[in-house]
Amino acid sequence: MLVVMKTGAPQEEVEKVHRRLEQMEVNIAKIEGAQQSVFALVGDTAKLDLESIKSNQHVEKIIRVQQPYKLASRTFHPADTVVEIGDCKIGGGNIAVIAGPCSVESEEQMVHTATLVKSYGATMLRGGAYKPRTSPYAFQGMGEDGLQLLVKAREATGLPFVTEAMGVEAFDAIEESADLIQIGARNMQNYDLLKRAGKSTKPILLKRGLSATLEEFLMSAEYILAGGNPNVILCERGIRTFDTYTRNTLDLSVIPAIKELSHLPIIVDPSHACGKWSMVEPLAKAAMAVGADGLIIEVHHNPEKALCDGAQSLKPEKFGHLMSAVQKIIAAV
Amino acid sequence: MLVVMKTGAPQEEVEKVHRRLEQMEVNIAKIEGAQQSVFALVGDTAKLDLESIKSNQHVEKIIRVQQPYKLASRTFHPADTVVEIGDCKIGGGNIAVIAGPCSVESEEQMVHTATLVKSYGATMLRGGAYKPRTSPYAFQGMGEDGLQLLVKAREATGLPFVTEAMGVEAFDAIEESADLIQIGARNMQNYDLLKRAGKSTKPILLKRGLSATLEEFLMSAEYILAGGNPNVILCERGIRTFDTYTRNTLDLSVIPAIKELSHLPIIVDPSHACGKWSMVEPLAKAAMAVGADGLIIEVHHNPEKALCDGAQSLKPEKFGHLMSAVQKIIAAV
Amino acid sequence: MLVVMKTGAPQEEVEKVHRRLEQMEVNIAKIEGAQQSVFALVGDTAKLDLESIKSNQHVEKIIRVQQPYKLASRTFHPADTVVEIGDCKIGGGNIAVIAGPCSVESEEQMVHTATLVKSYGATMLRGGAYKPRTSPYAFQGMGEDGLQLLVKAREATGLPFVTEAMGVEAFDAIEESADLIQIGARNMQNYDLLKRAGKSTKPILLKRGLSATLEEFLMSAEYILAGGNPNVILCERGIRTFDTYTRNTLDLSVIPAIKELSHLPIIVDPSHACGKWSMVEPLAKAAMAVGADGLIIEVHHNPEKALCDGAQSLKPEKFGHLMSAVQKIIAAV
Amino acid sequence: MLVVMKTGAPQEEVEKVHRRLEQMEVNIAKIEGAQQSVFALVGDTAKLDLESIKSNQHVEKIIRVQQPYKLASRTFHPADTVVEIGDCKIGGGNIAVIAGPCSVESEEQMVHTATLVKSYGATMLRGGAYKPRTSPYAFQGMGEDGLQLLVKAREATGLPFVTEAMGVEAFDAIEESADLIQIGARNMQNYDLLKRAGKSTKPILLKRGLSATLEEFLMSAEYILAGGNPNVILCERGIRTFDTYTRNTLDLSVIPAIKELSHLPIIVDPSHACGKWSMVEPLAKAAMAVGADGLIIEVHHNPEKALCDGAQSLKPEKFGHLMSAVQKIIAAV
Repeated sequence: MLVVMKTGAPQEEVEKVHRRLEQMEVNIAKIEGAQQSVFALVGDTAKLDLESIKSNQHVEKIIRVQQPYKLASRTFHPADTVVEIGDCKIGGGNIAVIAGPCSVESEEQMVHTATLVKSYGATMLRGGAYKPRTSPYAFQGMGEDGLQLLVKAREATGLPFVTEAMGVEAFDAIEESADLIQIGARNMQNYDLLKRAGKSTKPILLKRGLSATLEEFLMSAEYILAGGNPNVILCERGIRTFDTYTRNTLDLSVIPAIKELSHLPIIVDPSHACGKWSMVEPLAKAAMAVGADGLIIEVHHNPEKALCDGAQSLKPEKFGHLMSAVQKIIAAV
Repeated sequence: MLVVMKTGAPQEEVEKVHRRLEQMEVNIAKIEGAQQSVFALVGDTAKLDLESIKSNQHVEKIIRVQQPYKLASRTFHPADTVVEIGDCKIGGGNIAVIAGPCSVESEEQMVHTATLVKSYGATMLRGGAYKPRTSPYAFQGMGEDGLQLLVKAREATGLPFVTEAMGVEAFDAIEESADLIQIGARNMQNYDLLKRAGKSTKPILLKRGLSATLEEFLMSAEYILAGGNPNVILCERGIRTFDTYTRNTLDLSVIPAIKELSHLPIIVDPSHACGKWSMVEPLAKAAMAVGADGLIIEVHHNPEKALCDGAQSLKPEKFGHLMSAVQKIIAAV
Repeated sequence: MLVVMKTGAPQEEVEKVHRRLEQMEVNIAKIEGAQQSVFALVGDTAKLDLESIKSNQHVEKIIRVQQPYKLASRTFHPADTVVEIGDCKIGGGNIAVIAGPCSVESEEQMVHTATLVKSYGATMLRGGAYKPRTSPYAFQGMGEDGLQLLVKAREATGLPFVTEAMGVEAFDAIEESADLIQIGARNMQNYDLLKRAGKSTKPILLKRGLSATLEEFLMSAEYILAGGNPNVILCERGIRTFDTYTRNTLDLSVIPAIKELSHLPIIVDPSHACGKWSMVEPLAKAAMAVGADGLIIEVHHNPEKALCDGAQSLKPEKFGHLMSAVQKIIAAV
Repeated sequence: MLVVMKTGAPQEEVEKVHRRLEQMEVNIAKIEGAQQSVFALVGDTAKLDLESIKSNQHVEKIIRVQQPYKLASRTFHPADTVVEIGDCKIGGGNIAVIAGPCSVESEEQMVHTATLVKSYGATMLRGGAYKPRTSPYAFQGMGEDGLQLLVKAREATGLPFVTEAMGVEAFDAIEESADLIQIGARNMQNYDLLKRAGKSTKPILLKRGLSATLEEFLMSAEYILAGGNPNVILCERGIRTFDTYTRNTLDLSVIPAIKELSHLPIIVDPSHACGKWSMVEPLAKAAMAVGADGLIIEVHHNPEKALCDGAQSLKPEKFGHLMSAVQKIIAAV
């Protein structure tokens, strides 16, 4: 970590900062630059809080060299983490394809869709029982009844399922029934929820926030890991940019980047990223080519009647087409 | 609302969409363009969910003309909302200045700071008892003990106080003691929390999310209003852009924009927006000049010892300087 | 095109706007909404300039339904454009791989690199003779001498080459020697340059600006096409977002989007997008999987001695590895 | 400047980098961290090109401590630069208000508008003779004829004028007649144009690019200064963000930031930033409150007939209202 003093900072202020730094449990090297003094802090600086140093008006800036996360870092955990969910493995070369509707709507819908996506090669089922909706007037999900329908679809097909927990209140019920618990993009920095997930016995699917840097993304994973839950799967689902042609901008460079920085598996959600069913297949293929550990795809047996996100849902036969295209890419990679 | 068909959509598909639209409780005008058919939907379209229409592959796009919020809209509520918090009013020409430390740290700190900021003209106190921190290893706030210290500072000075609720769990305790309850930027779309806030008897300070559009911001306010709580104060605190010189980018154009779109009061948080104490005063002046209904400013009696956000905290005397500068602007406006 | 009047606009103002619109050569449908009047304009609205209508204070907004570009639009030109550059074709199923150093530095470098990239399967050579550099103190390129070295490399290998024109002044010299002329991201809206390119007999490689929407990107292509030059190849090279881990954020969803909107070929530059050589290969594979018509890759025989962009340049053998990986993806797609 | 080696970089690679750095004319301090080796480079690193070092696969990153600009930096030039344009001064406490139409359209328009804006207190005239337009089908400006009309308006009122140079070709003609030459946002990194401006005898108004960081903005100013022209005025005119309610997002925090980093004057263009005439006055007031050195405002005597940007143009009487409001803010600051 570097503490950079301002050009022309008085000698006594430089010394004052030096003395404050010496109180911390790190080694300090002072570098006298052409215009500025710089302190280099060596040691375990990940947990150091230098806010108070920054408030000195003669300090220009603080530059972090080391990553602020430890448990999520590949530096301290070189081997890929493999998360097991029933028979389904994700990470370390194991590819998972999660498919299903945006919202759980009926037993017929869930069992029918689950059967079809399994037949096309999906390894896990998705379906929202509690739905985060921009509008208070939009369908908010079936809640606990929806969970029961997911359980029925699992019983009918053997597919484990993932569903979203929007808050701490409904977490217990979801934890009891779900195989994998999703924390959505809007809740990526809902710290109460992250802490609860850290105490869960179930693996967590953590979606990247719409404007989250990689560091923030991994720090949110760190919350869960630090709480005691080692089973975290990351998910890129598009970030917010100036471009409005697609709902969000899918950031596929995040996949090789996360692979460098962290040992955690990362999957891609092309459906939410683009918001248009016609672009899901090409983006799914790109996700596999770039090295993602899996996909999560919205599939609805009748998108024109979907209560949520119909525009980005694939019909089952289109999902079948996607699966065969994706499998060719997986084979090529 | 407009439903735009794709160029070259088959006549039967255009008719199919027409029939679907006719099932909705709106009037429909069909416009035959040079290349495309367009349906114009007239009536109360705010609550219409057209996701399923969008999934028709011959529909190019849906364009919303009307705002999706109603309770937050100035169209249906032309007069400015004035929120009363004890003796302090915000909105409709009433300016509030909220000041205090980022985190509650000790009784001495809170009472001392409250007394000083009151003497310089602040009308409300701020202080975080529950702190959202990017790192799980950073100070997470004093919790309920912090609430008690805020109550003591209120007793000592008469200043009402605002503090943040990070989730539904601690909401009851905060609601009992706080005068104004903050929902932070990271929780702007934490819908469980918004629903809880909608049932609260206390006014809510809703901060804009880092990448929230104005529509999303007002839709989150709509959640609270639709829940039955009419007392919502909005707060601009900087958005996330490509620029990294300041912590966030303060978007002051949002003030006149919100004034056009909504009747709700809106204040500005220059401290979190810029992250540098040296820029707080000029941005506070600009906020007043552009028409904001108030300010929320971080003040710490000893920023170099602050447990959080010391870099952006003003010393009390600097806050005094800011207040006199700001008052000149208010007088000029 | 839609002209949306404000809620509560006086009847006489609505009529005034109506009369103004009637002066334009389009058909008008007036839609009376619940709160607002809306005029729908039908006809050839692409060239309509409605700035003056927007200045009426009772007009809320103008919504464009039709695309503002015509020559670049797939609507009016359904078949893929195929650009031919010597023996190399791009578009309509023809994949091109352009490779070479960021800057032309010496004859030995250019001929050596050209020979190697050709042996690995590249179909065109790249090399900058005129370099756009952020700093006035950085190496600005060899200029005309650099062009001569590119010509020598072409003579030695038979590979056609692309090089950048930074302005109108050096355009003639570049046009005379180059096979394909690049307009860089920073010049995407340099209209003098676009107009010059429109009069050129050589094909143009137009890179997307760092913050260009798809519409702006295609409007810049429209400038060239409208000038009389039908041979435009688009290039996605990363956009600017809040994320700083990579130099820019590669937007691969732009590929299927452009394929829907336009008939022009589009290639991908993963080197500039990420700025890190280690991420070039996975992103190149993703670009092929998502449906791009080609790649442009920085290759330097000795990146540690490169005068420019060494960090993102591949060594020739790494480029060879990339080519075999990419060819497997192409076969799979 | 810091060169950070990767965790686990082999000792011989660390030494190899050390030897490369020793060839540069700077002092080097090696810091052995807990996981990583870091080299600190001390001396005049502004002109150092470390691209080649970055290409070493064992180098994690390079962190620049010092600013890459020198002539534009306040460090080396503490006093405010004051630019004189006829009788009009900008910077160092001198406020300038530039007003006029987006495009020059007729003699009557220019002389009439110039007379009116002067009567309301404007100190300089603006008007575009060469217009950068997104669409090739939109009005492109009157060219040299427009310059003549600007000259006539100057003769009639005594107001100096600013107009935009879009490229090197028309620069001579503009330089001959204009008092201040604008380089537009889209050309902020048009280096041929910046180099030409550096050789000009006339002061330059450099607008910030839509996605330019402060460092890039100042580096573009550095191009002009390094060319020999010391008279550069910066202009903030809105940046591109995810928000679409306003045309761009006015970044007023850039004003105090630039004041810290540079000695150059900086003005604000609220008209282009918001694109809506109703928001121009509040943003102009905010710009003055935050410390800008001036304003540039679009005024048209008949916005509904303007050939360009009518939506954001003020009528002269509204400009008069703005001027009196702004003057109160200036007095208060």
